[in-house]
Amino acid sequence: MTEPRRDGFLGGRLSIAQPVAGYRAGADAVMLAAACPAQAGESVLELGCGAGTALFCLGARVPGLRLTGLEVQDSYAALARENADQNGIPARIVTGDLTRMPPELRAESFDHVISNPPYFTSGTVAPDAGRGTARHEDAPLSLWLETALRRLRPGGWLTLIHRAERLSVILSVLGAGAGEITILPVSARIGRDAGRIIVLARKGAKAPLRLLSPFIMHEKPSHSADAEDLTAEAHAVLRDGAPLNLRGR
Amino acid sequence: MTEPRRDGFLGGRLSIAQPVAGYRAGADAVMLAAACPAQAGESVLELGCGAGTALFCLGARVPGLRLTGLEVQDSYAALARENADQNGIPARIVTGDLTRMPPELRAESFDHVISNPPYFTSGTVAPDAGRGTARHEDAPLSLWLETALRRLRPGGWLTLIHRAERLSVILSVLGAGAGEITILPVSARIGRDAGRIIVLARKGAKAPLRLLSPFIMHEKPSHSADAEDLTAEAHAVLRDGAPLNLRGR
Repeated sequence: MTEPRRDGFLGGRLSIAQPVAGYRAGADAVMLAAACPAQAGESVLELGCGAGTALFCLGARVPGLRLTGLEVQDSYAALARENADQNGIPARIVTGDLTRMPPELRAESFDHVISNPPYFTSGTVAPDAGRGTARHEDAPLSLWLETALRRLRPGGWLTLIHRAERLSVILSVLGAGAGEITILPVSARIGRDAGRIIVLARKGAKAPLRLLSPFIMHEKPSHSADAEDLTAEAHAVLRDGAPLNLRGR
Repeated sequence: MTEPRRDGFLGGRLSIAQPVAGYRAGADAVMLAAACPAQAGESVLELGCGAGTALFCLGARVPGLRLTGLEVQDSYAALARENADQNGIPARIVTGDLTRMPPELRAESFDHVISNPPYFTSGTVAPDAGRGTARHEDAPLSLWLETALRRLRPGGWLTLIHRAERLSVILSVLGAGAGEITILPVSARIGRDAGRIIVLARKGAKAPLRLLSPFIMHEKPSHSADAEDLTAEAHAVLRDGAPLNLRGR
């Protein structure tokens, strides 16, 4: 892993050390944290926490959570611990593989599981090992989702962000073990396909699925070299740390 | 079944006899027909064609199709045959049950299958038997979809309209036997949840799923007693018979 650099999130409220050339969390991690409906006193597990961006965005918005991150790569887990200290957000970071769940986590169930599983399943692995592991699925997406459901208490909430094109796999797994599924399509601009989906699902619930109106990231109909053109809602989430209340939409 | 009454579709280009009190096709059937990418010379099977509204909307837009409708209820099948004659659109209407596919259809495969499967799986059955059968699933939705895939030739297209809340079941079945899945959410008004989804899928294809920007039916943010307030796009599809080109969106 290359030397870390510190990036600001939530308008600078959070400072996260990330490797310059490895896998670097961005807007997806912030959106994931914003969509998790955790409340003070509840427990949250992130599967594949990397350097901890999503976990600490959530911790910064909701004080009093019991945060746990599982990360397979030593170097990212070490960064996550450093980031917890630097930001004054207590968190337990466990180094381990979700396909061989560490016993201390296997014995627990959580009120919330959040995850931004690796996006790409094929193609050449990036030269940097860290980036490669975070970007390519060693375990298939279905295994990430099944593992997430297993770690939830009955009635607990899974919050997930992923590429919209993986919706079939996601709903095939969640449809079997969860309900009250709420899907927020995320589009770069109005009228565009959803690039990402944020999915909230409740373990063992029966309430019907909802497909929400899309969340739009940018105001302008096409990219321009001008300053950032986030929509008001995207600005509130990415810069001001506002929650993304899927059930209230 | 109560006495039929004639309803105009596509701005009056099509006249469909439907029972006054039984199951009556409406905008969903027109949208389904608009989304089917069939071209002259191709074969189309509709599973559960009722009085034939979707089939004849499609036939009116695309001349030269070989249209087949499967309908379990004699009285609706008879109406569909009458509607084919009245509108001068040749079609073969087969009376039969999709759970016991008639041999003449089992021997065939089609370029396109379209369907608007029954929407409700529970609740009291409506007093009118026709309405009851069309509204309540005797066969589960998954069986409708599996049957549709079986009747397609390899590379053939399934076009489907259904309630958005059934997306998990739909993608679980289609994800196994089809690809190039395109989902068009249909919302009554901007910002609202999708009430319906139109799904286009190609048998045996591998191309990734696309989740499109929603199709919006009404202009105004809320219902008003004023005259109809269809969006320009909804007007084009419902009144002018324009196609809904999902792959070109």
